[in-house]
Amino acid sequence: MSDHGYEAGRLNLPFVGISTFGKRPYVADWDAIEADVAILGAPFDFGTQWRPGARFGPRAVREASTLFSFGHAGAYDHEDDATYLASDVRIVDLGDADIIHTKTDESHANIEFGVRKILAAGALPVVIGGDHSINIPCINAFSEQEPVHVVQIDAHLDFVDSRHGVTAGHGNPMRRAIEKPWVCGMTQLGIRNVSSTAKEGYDDARARGSDILSVRQVRALGLEAVLARIPAGARYYVTIDIDAFCPSIAPGTGTPSHGGFLYYDVLEILQGLAQRGHVAGIDLVEVAPAYDPTDSTQILAAQLLLNFIGFIFHQRR
Amino acid sequence: MSDHGYEAGRLNLPFVGISTFGKRPYVADWDAIEADVAILGAPFDFGTQWRPGARFGPRAVREASTLFSFGHAGAYDHEDDATYLASDVRIVDLGDADIIHTKTDESHANIEFGVRKILAAGALPVVIGGDHSINIPCINAFSEQEPVHVVQIDAHLDFVDSRHGVTAGHGNPMRRAIEKPWVCGMTQLGIRNVSSTAKEGYDDARARGSDILSVRQVRALGLEAVLARIPAGARYYVTIDIDAFCPSIAPGTGTPSHGGFLYYDVLEILQGLAQRGHVAGIDLVEVAPAYDPTDSTQILAAQLLLNFIGFIFHQRR
Amino acid sequence: MSDHGYEAGRLNLPFVGISTFGKRPYVADWDAIEADVAILGAPFDFGTQWRPGARFGPRAVREASTLFSFGHAGAYDHEDDATYLASDVRIVDLGDADIIHTKTDESHANIEFGVRKILAAGALPVVIGGDHSINIPCINAFSEQEPVHVVQIDAHLDFVDSRHGVTAGHGNPMRRAIEKPWVCGMTQLGIRNVSSTAKEGYDDARARGSDILSVRQVRALGLEAVLARIPAGARYYVTIDIDAFCPSIAPGTGTPSHGGFLYYDVLEILQGLAQRGHVAGIDLVEVAPAYDPTDSTQILAAQLLLNFIGFIFHQRR
Amino acid sequence: MSDHGYEAGRLNLPFVGISTFGKRPYVADWDAIEADVAILGAPFDFGTQWRPGARFGPRAVREASTLFSFGHAGAYDHEDDATYLASDVRIVDLGDADIIHTKTDESHANIEFGVRKILAAGALPVVIGGDHSINIPCINAFSEQEPVHVVQIDAHLDFVDSRHGVTAGHGNPMRRAIEKPWVCGMTQLGIRNVSSTAKEGYDDARARGSDILSVRQVRALGLEAVLARIPAGARYYVTIDIDAFCPSIAPGTGTPSHGGFLYYDVLEILQGLAQRGHVAGIDLVEVAPAYDPTDSTQILAAQLLLNFIGFIFHQRR
Amino acid sequence: MSDHGYEAGRLNLPFVGISTFGKRPYVADWDAIEADVAILGAPFDFGTQWRPGARFGPRAVREASTLFSFGHAGAYDHEDDATYLASDVRIVDLGDADIIHTKTDESHANIEFGVRKILAAGALPVVIGGDHSINIPCINAFSEQEPVHVVQIDAHLDFVDSRHGVTAGHGNPMRRAIEKPWVCGMTQLGIRNVSSTAKEGYDDARARGSDILSVRQVRALGLEAVLARIPAGARYYVTIDIDAFCPSIAPGTGTPSHGGFLYYDVLEILQGLAQRGHVAGIDLVEVAPAYDPTDSTQILAAQLLLNFIGFIFHQRR
Amino acid sequence: MSDHGYEAGRLNLPFVGISTFGKRPYVADWDAIEADVAILGAPFDFGTQWRPGARFGPRAVREASTLFSFGHAGAYDHEDDATYLASDVRIVDLGDADIIHTKTDESHANIEFGVRKILAAGALPVVIGGDHSINIPCINAFSEQEPVHVVQIDAHLDFVDSRHGVTAGHGNPMRRAIEKPWVCGMTQLGIRNVSSTAKEGYDDARARGSDILSVRQVRALGLEAVLARIPAGARYYVTIDIDAFCPSIAPGTGTPSHGGFLYYDVLEILQGLAQRGHVAGIDLVEVAPAYDPTDSTQILAAQLLLNFIGFIFHQRR
Repeated sequence: MSDHGYEAGRLNLPFVGISTFGKRPYVADWDAIEADVAILGAPFDFGTQWRPGARFGPRAVREASTLFSFGHAGAYDHEDDATYLASDVRIVDLGDADIIHTKTDESHANIEFGVRKILAAGALPVVIGGDHSINIPCINAFSEQEPVHVVQIDAHLDFVDSRHGVTAGHGNPMRRAIEKPWVCGMTQLGIRNVSSTAKEGYDDARARGSDILSVRQVRALGLEAVLARIPAGARYYVTIDIDAFCPSIAPGTGTPSHGGFLYYDVLEILQGLAQRGHVAGIDLVEVAPAYDPTDSTQILAAQLLLNFIGFIFHQRR
Repeated sequence: MSDHGYEAGRLNLPFVGISTFGKRPYVADWDAIEADVAILGAPFDFGTQWRPGARFGPRAVREASTLFSFGHAGAYDHEDDATYLASDVRIVDLGDADIIHTKTDESHANIEFGVRKILAAGALPVVIGGDHSINIPCINAFSEQEPVHVVQIDAHLDFVDSRHGVTAGHGNPMRRAIEKPWVCGMTQLGIRNVSSTAKEGYDDARARGSDILSVRQVRALGLEAVLARIPAGARYYVTIDIDAFCPSIAPGTGTPSHGGFLYYDVLEILQGLAQRGHVAGIDLVEVAPAYDPTDSTQILAAQLLLNFIGFIFHQRR
Repeated sequence: MSDHGYEAGRLNLPFVGISTFGKRPYVADWDAIEADVAILGAPFDFGTQWRPGARFGPRAVREASTLFSFGHAGAYDHEDDATYLASDVRIVDLGDADIIHTKTDESHANIEFGVRKILAAGALPVVIGGDHSINIPCINAFSEQEPVHVVQIDAHLDFVDSRHGVTAGHGNPMRRAIEKPWVCGMTQLGIRNVSSTAKEGYDDARARGSDILSVRQVRALGLEAVLARIPAGARYYVTIDIDAFCPSIAPGTGTPSHGGFLYYDVLEILQGLAQRGHVAGIDLVEVAPAYDPTDSTQILAAQLLLNFIGFIFHQRR
Repeated sequence: MSDHGYEAGRLNLPFVGISTFGKRPYVADWDAIEADVAILGAPFDFGTQWRPGARFGPRAVREASTLFSFGHAGAYDHEDDATYLASDVRIVDLGDADIIHTKTDESHANIEFGVRKILAAGALPVVIGGDHSINIPCINAFSEQEPVHVVQIDAHLDFVDSRHGVTAGHGNPMRRAIEKPWVCGMTQLGIRNVSSTAKEGYDDARARGSDILSVRQVRALGLEAVLARIPAGARYYVTIDIDAFCPSIAPGTGTPSHGGFLYYDVLEILQGLAQRGHVAGIDLVEVAPAYDPTDSTQILAAQLLLNFIGFIFHQRR
Repeated sequence: MSDHGYEAGRLNLPFVGISTFGKRPYVADWDAIEADVAILGAPFDFGTQWRPGARFGPRAVREASTLFSFGHAGAYDHEDDATYLASDVRIVDLGDADIIHTKTDESHANIEFGVRKILAAGALPVVIGGDHSINIPCINAFSEQEPVHVVQIDAHLDFVDSRHGVTAGHGNPMRRAIEKPWVCGMTQLGIRNVSSTAKEGYDDARARGSDILSVRQVRALGLEAVLARIPAGARYYVTIDIDAFCPSIAPGTGTPSHGGFLYYDVLEILQGLAQRGHVAGIDLVEVAPAYDPTDSTQILAAQLLLNFIGFIFHQRR
Repeated sequence: MSDHGYEAGRLNLPFVGISTFGKRPYVADWDAIEADVAILGAPFDFGTQWRPGARFGPRAVREASTLFSFGHAGAYDHEDDATYLASDVRIVDLGDADIIHTKTDESHANIEFGVRKILAAGALPVVIGGDHSINIPCINAFSEQEPVHVVQIDAHLDFVDSRHGVTAGHGNPMRRAIEKPWVCGMTQLGIRNVSSTAKEGYDDARARGSDILSVRQVRALGLEAVLARIPAGARYYVTIDIDAFCPSIAPGTGTPSHGGFLYYDVLEILQGLAQRGHVAGIDLVEVAPAYDPTDSTQILAAQLLLNFIGFIFHQRR
């Protein structure tokens, strides 16, 4: 009954072969997406306020994802006694949106174009940044979709309206999102310490209905209570800034902040979301591999994404 | 009511500009210190018994501190709903004490000279090491001050009296401190596993009244019980060896030791101390950036110091 | 009463001298082992499925072990109020088994040869890998010994029987072990997420009596309950794959997996095992120093081994 | 007349997109190779005698090759006033040969299989190692081809016949090659200092007709004189061990040796070979990216291969 | 006669003190520049087409420059038997131009503003990038000055007119410069291999009078002949892209290219220029420290700039 | 006739076994040295004026030296058609001199003690630093020997008499040496650019008879002319500061300086010295491995020392 890939032909060890996401097929023709999930790289990083380098996030996460590709017929998890991502979940890798150096608006437009293609094909968009500003075109691409509740997992509030004319940097995306008619709510988890958002931003966010919880608050509440604050049965857009995590496991990022989440903190929230509603879109941003010579950061990103996609489609079966 | 710096002129992003501590003014004339807090670098590291490099600690912590400098009117913390370090807290950076290679006593004397200048100006000295031996001249400089209770946060007891004639290395400072008439007590937190202090040192410390707690003991007691063991309303001198922390977040140090504190363990102790008494002096030592290519260690040091100073002056208002 | 080494002669700081394990004597003649503990390096890494480099594990762990060598008369632990590894515990370093490039069977045979020499001398073998496949010859060498219960601390089940003809790679050792008549039981701790073992392997392991617990399951049960599942009074062979640990403290390994153990999780299990039965053999594998520029991984390995050996002989006194 | 890719559509900057060699098409079906050049990865590294890691050479060289992919209609070289690699040179990337951990012969057989497929399709095989032992299956695959003269560019002679039964490690390939009836001559350039080949190997090589020149000898002779020692008009198989180069530009390799070639030394030899005869096969081996955090080594490998392929097809026009 | 700084007070070793350029005074008020030379950081890097990170170039070069600051009364060079940069050469550090993330034009305008302030004060502007696009505002700032001959030292021609609307990226500056009425000529040294400039760019550059020489051409001509091609007695604007150098000494850069200049190649050209005419402006760009853990790249940049400034003012005396 | 070690027993690949120098025997009893060459580590680095870390030089060079240990019966060099270091050259490793942290004089005395033991045993001392100040005790130890001519290979003159009381730092050794009655001359090669020695030091050195040549001067003169300036038939003490080399091949050092020697520049001088007179003592200093993640620096040091010792004893036969 098994159809492990290695039984039919190549052993195909993780270190062997071209680095597409999960070693899944590369689809160059974005008008021919036939998939449940489509991966899109968004290697844009002119929006950062400290260390750049997230433009190499998509390639780094792709290569790290091959570590989890042993050619089995799905990924068996003994804790859940479940097999995730069997061959009936069709994942494709679209490569990257076209980025134009020195040009923010044009680059963002190209990202939006790609996400719209994925949505048009009926697939789940999973966008790998790039800095957090790439969330702006991702959310824009949902303009024709049913409303989504945005769940942000991040160290920083990213709720700056405009400063020195900047409205599309990596400190602005949540402010941009909440302005959209098709964004019906927002939960911001992991927020801590100083960032580019000043007190006014917090006041603004709360006034607009956002629910803001720090790492300590999330832990004090517990998983169930946190999930209970998020509307059940809704459509979720989940945006994961890797700096939500403790620098101990995610140092490869532009603006690290101590006191972040550990692995299971976030994994269990993602599993809870997959069970609680419909995940309509995902982005994972701010992986900057140049700052993590151990590769732990991109391995974390890949491990999270593969598990999250697994949870989502396990639920949909 | 706001006076965010970027509203008046430059955006002044964290990566822009000269690296003084927190981008605060550099004061070259130590006879003209007008400040609440004065930062002094003590780039001495001939006292180490394993990896040297803490001489670059002051520069590394300074640069890391700019990550938290977004030009806001103070640092808003949503968990405390408080704004720390508004413009009424005057912080200056004095640069470094003069270090003489091959010469321990002369270098230490130069550090003591700087701390005395700060105390004479009525400012809070915050000394960035350098290895832990620099605590010796720091404590010496308090000879004319009201007595202090020393709170050490460290992996190692640093309580060696003398061995092979060494009395001023990084294994000796707590023994040197407790000898001083102006040191009225000592609490040593985070101590664990083997170090340069042998059993005799522990016996000596306890005999002299020191309260020694390991990481696991601190956690088992809980924050409140730990604070309760420290005299309330006293003057505290707080010495933070970065190796008190788990190597997961502070690998950039000379003598790492597994099983250390995580971020909130220490942050909350510092916040508690700021509320419980008067913090009269601070040093933070053993940041050796060469061993941490991710910069997490110096970011931790900067994040801790900025928060700790914030807590102290928030309380003093 | 003290006989600290530095009192008689050299200060012998940790950074000084040749890197044998714990600065203990090197014994080149394996027919003349007179010791309680014999360290053997097994620098073989052709069995890895992702990043190689564990061949430099033995040298890295040796050098890291000197960090804990201050020349004291044993290692005083203030938490236990105990002095471990006093001079009556004789530890020797045998250097490495001879490895033949391109040749797996021949290299494994050389490792087995070394372990048999240690066992013949009545010493406790402590083998430093190399990849986890080196556990196979280690277990083989116990064929003439009383049965052992294998306790594996690892992220991965390593229970692949055979795939593409591979039966002696780093995904196979636990399957190889359980086949042996002299292996009377198996406990597998820390197992999580996807690995080279597919669902069939888990079914096979459970059918053969293995007790499999994830990190979260170990924590939920608690130390005592976990220990209670391991036969008391038995002879244990303990195999520690460093990737059992969280990549935050052990990034220097071939196949990192997030969500792993922290330091005390494992330290306390090891201390518990030392008290609960007779530890007859130890290997620690998969330290690949090239991926951890901070050296935290090898420091962890050395700190664990020195403590574990200390616990064992403290109990035996 | 131009058909720069960016004029028709995407700017496609070097950092954007999936990392195939030169961003050329990936061909998964090895029975459908329609190309002038076919790239094959051979990520095998169990043959190394010092630092492993060349298994990540193919991926590293692929990613580095994208640095030179600006989407122009060929690569214009102002020194030669020539445009290389215009669209009429069809390059494809076949991905990697299947590697079986712990199994040398089986892995080598899979490499040979891939090279035979390329030769059957009439394309030029360009194989990226892996360690130098992968040259053995590459040469094997030429058994049905017209004879080739092997030109080796390397620090080490790699001429060990057999030692401890090892005949297929990275010290053996040139000895294996010269045994083949279809290898009609050998030139070994860059050879210097101690290696796994002892004096007997040099005697053997010379007795079998090999021409051995050190770096200093190559420089003293000059380019033209060196080329004159290689048969004109012959078919060449060129094997480039990246450790032929000075560690200053190629530190990312298993067994570095000081005193190596600089860039133009080798570039000009390759250009000379392209003009002097028919290049029938190429391998480039021993790029181990883990040891070069600057990426210079893989950039060198990519820059050399792209130029060499350019020279060859410029000549063939 | 000596006035070495250390005789009067502090030893001031290189590793001690705040990192301004050459430990010279920081001048925050750009309307009060009284100096012969003014250093300005231009930490902009959104113009890069491969690895970003040059925004940290100014800080890295500043810190590296302190290595050459021993407090002597000038820098004695025994080869020239000359003392450079004695106290009569007044150098100040202005800090950095204000950079606005996501905004190229605004950031460039801030750089131009700073250079204009320096020129207005009659000082020599020395701008430290940032990517090579920052040369565009630097040249713009010379609009009111006497014409300059631009001498570019670089691997890449940087002569792209416009592509996908990009006219101010790091591939465009030389095209932008030659358009200016106040640029009276151009010499481009070190140009080699493929870059963002296609064949049309070379034709364009030559048509507009640029003199293009590769590294090999510069070496074949020799220093004197190269200098002879540059107008004598002219005003020079010298723009140094660190990637002109061989990656062996300058790996810390965005787009490395093998076959570059070595240290004396460029040092002697700079010394020749200082003697041949009037150096009116300097920029040094593309130092990206994240890619060079050895710090060699920034040390090279600092060593070059200090020597070049020394040569210029030695000549002017 | 061969007695390659691997024929009799173990293959003993370079990565296998304890890291003594060249895998030669460790001799703990310094009163029982029976050898032609004795290696002594001098891990002292409090004398540095920039980056510390040379205390790990001895261990790093030892491990790197194993790369050249293939178990052959000597090291065959095909360029010289000579076999160096056959078994009749007895090399032993004495481990390290005892270093006392914070104590310069005491540490230096321990180094002197070790060198005197070597000289007393009639062996050639080869001391691995440590910073260049360790040359001071090395030279002191020759007080009872026939006079030596000191040949220094270095970037820096190291001729500071005293500054701020420092007379035994790494800027002082050549000044200290020339004062000794048993130092009969001095040649300083590779000296360039600014260092801790000011103009007065150069004047002083020349007045005392030192012959100072820069890298460019050495190259312009050529090998023979340089050797001709050194007294023939004399006894030489050779002190090699690794920063004499270009940072491209020796970045792992405290005070790098661009424009240094390449490998053959120095190798040929050393070979020439071995032929020209009697080498009576050697030290190699300033290898600081923390700054070179590629290991090139220590490989260079090991490759040089092994070759130099080979040349010396080849000549003595």
